[in-house]
Amino acid sequence: MALPLLQIALDNLTIEEAINSAQKAAKYIDVIEVGTILLASEGKKAIAELKKAFPDKIIVADGKIADAGKVFAKMFFESGADYTTAICAAENATMEDLVQYSQTFGNGKELQVEMTTNFTWEQVQSWKQAGVPQVVWHRARDAQAAGVKWGQKDIDTVKKLADMGFKVTVTGGVAVEDIKLFKDIPIYIFIAGRSIRDAADPQAAAKEFKDEFKKYWSN
Amino acid sequence: MALPLLQIALDNLTIEEAINSAQKAAKYIDVIEVGTILLASEGKKAIAELKKAFPDKIIVADGKIADAGKVFAKMFFESGADYTTAICAAENATMEDLVQYSQTFGNGKELQVEMTTNFTWEQVQSWKQAGVPQVVWHRARDAQAAGVKWGQKDIDTVKKLADMGFKVTVTGGVAVEDIKLFKDIPIYIFIAGRSIRDAADPQAAAKEFKDEFKKYWSN
Repeated sequence: MALPLLQIALDNLTIEEAINSAQKAAKYIDVIEVGTILLASEGKKAIAELKKAFPDKIIVADGKIADAGKVFAKMFFESGADYTTAICAAENATMEDLVQYSQTFGNGKELQVEMTTNFTWEQVQSWKQAGVPQVVWHRARDAQAAGVKWGQKDIDTVKKLADMGFKVTVTGGVAVEDIKLFKDIPIYIFIAGRSIRDAADPQAAAKEFKDEFKKYWSN
Repeated sequence: MALPLLQIALDNLTIEEAINSAQKAAKYIDVIEVGTILLASEGKKAIAELKKAFPDKIIVADGKIADAGKVFAKMFFESGADYTTAICAAENATMEDLVQYSQTFGNGKELQVEMTTNFTWEQVQSWKQAGVPQVVWHRARDAQAAGVKWGQKDIDTVKKLADMGFKVTVTGGVAVEDIKLFKDIPIYIFIAGRSIRDAADPQAAAKEFKDEFKKYWSN
């Protein structure tokens, strides 16, 4: 199984802080996420500035698109995003538009469907049929704060999604010690946010994740 | 039953265009929506600029919050929004945080849960229990484009939501001739977007909506 990629979530309130946060760990980062908070705070120029600062990284615009798929995909991809997220509640027509638009745009642009626990496997099936390449399994920040831990249900869900052929991202307060929980599953991306950004040594914190990946996945 | 309010959705790409669009119909508009597209394009300053331009209107930040409720509510309310939307897929902890934060903030700040067809009545019940005051029934833009019309199912859903005590907003390509479909239901807000913005005479188009409201609801 290929080594998972490491994504840093930039949920800063300003572009400057976001670039600073990413620079401190850049050496070990594969994917840079323009978080929904940063996007709402600064708008699409946050995507352009992050792409300019990190032209060799994969840039994800975490727009959590719910509707008007083509308008958002055009905005995000033209601003420099490589991947964009849609929220699981979006209608199927939106997912279809997003897949089609990203394929037409080319250049490796891809859609990720971000999942909360409020989804059905019927929806997941319809994403598969629409050609959605990626999904994000997301333990919500507010749920974490309310004490929800990683559990067997998360692992089973992630495994089922990977078995269906989706490239799966795992996110939501992922700590280094959580990585091994997913060891038998081909994870495409792990996202770390505060565990890298708030570390005393963000570079070392990012390296720790990459070292952990090497223990359970090989290249 | 009270007269419904009229909301204009500003899904422009720039703040300047948004203010222009709203000014052309302002006389008959009660609520101004900083659309998700505008918010992604320009960031939170779009809220502040719209509130500055229209201090007497209710401002809705259509942020479709999916997580990190307090961070977004703080950002949007402090920027001048009166209402903010959360997407139906958000976890219950997020809805609870949003209700609590808006009550603490005071000043009439309220949460609206924006619904797609991907929801369960169990979720709706949990929003009720969490104290969510408002819901938005949304016929998706992409679904409309794919030919989905207003139907009995929309009307039944909206009625059920109003019966449960939610203040209900109806949106998604609402035309003047659609208004009568909802005549026996206490609708809180109807949203019109392109049907006002793209009209040759936006003021007249907005007035038409208000005149239509008076036919079926009384003050």
